[in-house]
Amino acid sequence: MTTEGLTPPPFDATTEWLRGEGESADVVLSSRVRLARNIAGHPFVIKAGRKHRQRTLELCRERVLHAGLATRVAWYELHRAPHLERALLVERHLISKQLSKGRASCGGPEDPRGVAVGLPDERLSIMVNEEDHLRIQVIRSGLALTEAWTEIDQADDRIESGLDYAYSPRFGYLTACPTNVGTGMRMSVMLHLPGLRLTGDIEKVKRAAADMCLAVRGFFGEGSEAVGDLYQLSNQTTLGKPETAILHDLERVIVPRIVEYERQSRRELLARRRVGVEDQVMRAWGLLTHARLLSTEESMQALSLARLGVQAGLLRDRAGATPDIRAINQLLLLVQPAHLQRAVGRELDQDQRRVARATLTRTRLAGG
Amino acid sequence: MTTEGLTPPPFDATTEWLRGEGESADVVLSSRVRLARNIAGHPFVIKAGRKHRQRTLELCRERVLHAGLATRVAWYELHRAPHLERALLVERHLISKQLSKGRASCGGPEDPRGVAVGLPDERLSIMVNEEDHLRIQVIRSGLALTEAWTEIDQADDRIESGLDYAYSPRFGYLTACPTNVGTGMRMSVMLHLPGLRLTGDIEKVKRAAADMCLAVRGFFGEGSEAVGDLYQLSNQTTLGKPETAILHDLERVIVPRIVEYERQSRRELLARRRVGVEDQVMRAWGLLTHARLLSTEESMQALSLARLGVQAGLLRDRAGATPDIRAINQLLLLVQPAHLQRAVGRELDQDQRRVARATLTRTRLAGG
Repeated sequence: MTTEGLTPPPFDATTEWLRGEGESADVVLSSRVRLARNIAGHPFVIKAGRKHRQRTLELCRERVLHAGLATRVAWYELHRAPHLERALLVERHLISKQLSKGRASCGGPEDPRGVAVGLPDERLSIMVNEEDHLRIQVIRSGLALTEAWTEIDQADDRIESGLDYAYSPRFGYLTACPTNVGTGMRMSVMLHLPGLRLTGDIEKVKRAAADMCLAVRGFFGEGSEAVGDLYQLSNQTTLGKPETAILHDLERVIVPRIVEYERQSRRELLARRRVGVEDQVMRAWGLLTHARLLSTEESMQALSLARLGVQAGLLRDRAGATPDIRAINQLLLLVQPAHLQRAVGRELDQDQRRVARATLTRTRLAGG
Repeated sequence: MTTEGLTPPPFDATTEWLRGEGESADVVLSSRVRLARNIAGHPFVIKAGRKHRQRTLELCRERVLHAGLATRVAWYELHRAPHLERALLVERHLISKQLSKGRASCGGPEDPRGVAVGLPDERLSIMVNEEDHLRIQVIRSGLALTEAWTEIDQADDRIESGLDYAYSPRFGYLTACPTNVGTGMRMSVMLHLPGLRLTGDIEKVKRAAADMCLAVRGFFGEGSEAVGDLYQLSNQTTLGKPETAILHDLERVIVPRIVEYERQSRRELLARRRVGVEDQVMRAWGLLTHARLLSTEESMQALSLARLGVQAGLLRDRAGATPDIRAINQLLLLVQPAHLQRAVGRELDQDQRRVARATLTRTRLAGG
């Protein structure tokens, strides 16, 4: 195990969750489990002053870097990281927007906080001093909640073996926000639902999810809009239901049902409106391979249709080959502002980003 | 000279006015001169019953087929032609919509009427029993009003040598509508003005044209909308000004001024908004080479931008070559409904035409 310093992650690392592989990868982009944990005898982050935060930061950093969590673990002190690097970590889904900003009451960017990232695949990440002292997260490609759960459970045990978690025999793990008390666990899947959007049935799915106490959010989680037909579905219950029951319901009952519904929509679209769908897919491909200016939203919408096109066998590049789904998945990340700026190696204003986004997209999909 | 029967013109003939050559061909798509003529001693078409019309039709047909007007002259009896063939002739700018329909008072489609077309380049056409007994037209590629005038003047002389035109020493040629009395001549140019549309200065040109008593119309003349940034500019005066004066004003003063204004707009756009213009051009090219469904209007708008792209040196196909301007020009015609149906050899409903239009466009621009 090596420990890396302040080096930011390679902007184009082979991120596990964009591999486009695993169960139901045609619909489930990724699966994610996160645990909220706090250290006993230390005030919750929200109640802690700067001094206490600095103390928990050191405690947690020490622990996560020596728990044998991954072959390599990178550590980022976010109060020392430039804005662009923090934005990069947000875009890679390694830290939350909240952690990126820092708490206003504790100096905002100066707020002592950090994140540990398992390299090279970034499957594991551990935020320190977010809402809780520790927010452990594992992301996997495809529908793989069980694997993610097994992995995070082991990581959790390893960390706990050297840290005393705040735990109540009656309530379970104690967390800053009551909605996390109990298991402290949240599971989510990132779903790609272009078929349901095109048939208009997406609203039914959203209502059904709400009825089952599941939250439906956008590509960047809480408060974000659904762009590129990507929806994050997550459990809301953390109290009174064991992790394995939540896992089973989500992975074996609910998600498979939505996956089947999405696949059914795609089949129906291809049976009844094939040319119309093909037209949308090919126009999107034409846009991605020709435009000289692209906004984030427009490019993500086109990438969504390209993904659908590859999976439905509608999309062929000029050489007659099916474009690489991984290249398309990765672009979902690379078209984001911080990644673009990292790619060109300097800060860009909005207009310059539109140029860089179009250039990058065109270059990456050059076979098209 | 041979005379052809009812065979419709080849749908994809090398039409003179789409060659994309000649003076100022970057802005002036084509130049057209037409003469309105009537036969002395016969009632004007509008006053004539079916019998008289049949008589003038025979007289005119006899004359235009034996006046040595072109190497080959095709003759179409429109009251015997199917709807689709008449629509084809309208799209090729060889007959007017009015002549295609026939006069309601004379049985509409049964109304005796015809058109003679000089082959193979379709430069010359002569409508019989439109508003006047004879409507002679010459179309040339680029700014070539003098050539068109010389050519039509000769054709007019040849026809007149065997027919007695209705003429008044005081008023000149007598025509059914007073707006044509005098020279009976109308000159027009088809202008491609994407630069002025993009800068927004097109409205100034329209107002200036109106001030000079010039009419500005769309691609299909009177009553048609401007699509594909194509505008037909024509003189309105036929009385009190000799043909050569009109010719001089239009060809040597007014059109060159608009051409220069359009070129200036393009230069400014390239200097100030190059990436934006390139983006629009490349998006249009991506659409033309990828879409599976295309409407007439959408395809003409994209073809207009592709034309601009070729002329501004912005457009390269995948092989790095500049696309053929003639292929783009010809598509302006081939995407029209009747041409599409002719291309596939059967009647198509609107949805089928959208598919056929996209297929044809993609195939023709395959280098892209």
